[in-house]
Amino acid sequence: MTRNILIVDDDRGILKSFKDILEPEGYSVDTAETALEAVEKCKARPYNLAIIDIKLRDVDGTDLLARVHEILPRARKIMITGYPSLENAVDSVNLQADAYIIKPVNPETFLKVVAENMDKQLEAEQMTEQKVVGWVESRYEETRRNRSKRKPMGPELLPNAEE
Amino acid sequence: MTRNILIVDDDRGILKSFKDILEPEGYSVDTAETALEAVEKCKARPYNLAIIDIKLRDVDGTDLLARVHEILPRARKIMITGYPSLENAVDSVNLQADAYIIKPVNPETFLKVVAENMDKQLEAEQMTEQKVVGWVESRYEETRRNRSKRKPMGPELLPNAEE
Repeated sequence: MTRNILIVDDDRGILKSFKDILEPEGYSVDTAETALEAVEKCKARPYNLAIIDIKLRDVDGTDLLARVHEILPRARKIMITGYPSLENAVDSVNLQADAYIIKPVNPETFLKVVAENMDKQLEAEQMTEQKVVGWVESRYEETRRNRSKRKPMGPELLPNAEE
Repeated sequence: MTRNILIVDDDRGILKSFKDILEPEGYSVDTAETALEAVEKCKARPYNLAIIDIKLRDVDGTDLLARVHEILPRARKIMITGYPSLENAVDSVNLQADAYIIKPVNPETFLKVVAENMDKQLEAEQMTEQKVVGWVESRYEETRRNRSKRKPMGPELLPNAEE
């Protein structure tokens, strides 16, 4: 199962260090230095998770958060900042961030937050799938039971979608 | 469609005033004065939305947020506080709050935040339903097409859940 991550930060050194922490864990990592680049990448690839620095060159990271949420509503969004404030933390809640990390962050904590959020994202995707499969399987079983009860087969044996 | 809301606050006056704002809009509103009471109510009824004050008598509202999220993961959770702080705002993000309102709040803003979150909650529920219905309908259509092509009917006309 692919586990795609996009990291957005205007500092190339930080992008490289996060990439170096995440890739050995099996994550597929893309990076973006600006919000513009991040938006283009989000449109091209369904990331499971985006890590967004709050101070970017072109816009506030919280504005990018809102845009990423529009493009990829089911992706998990982790905000990261060296300049925590009540204002940007409240904006993060209200714009649907899933986590808020204060820099500097040690690699263990960083990996833990990423892993927890990735697990929840994959779980949510799977739950939707399972709900569909479960529904269909129960209908199939019902059809099978009807079939063995009633012979010869008639058109009424077709599953009725309105039931 | 039911639109159930739970409000948790240790101040009865506030509970009453929020209830008076929400009920005329057609929401079905329950209240709880403690986290313990809130947890019991969440177990008994699938609220679409919970409004949680951060200062409660028995526990921190953010701890209750985590518990409500466990019991009702799909409900929207709005935190409300007269004592905003970086710490409780960051906790709210990391514990999956959907909104953070600072008191005092005027009724229009309050209703707007509630309505937006309620709409998103109902939309998410519907999307899951539609996904299931869409999948089943497409399988049904396929079965119908096969049926009109192939006569007489045989066991192979039963939908194959593995396809």
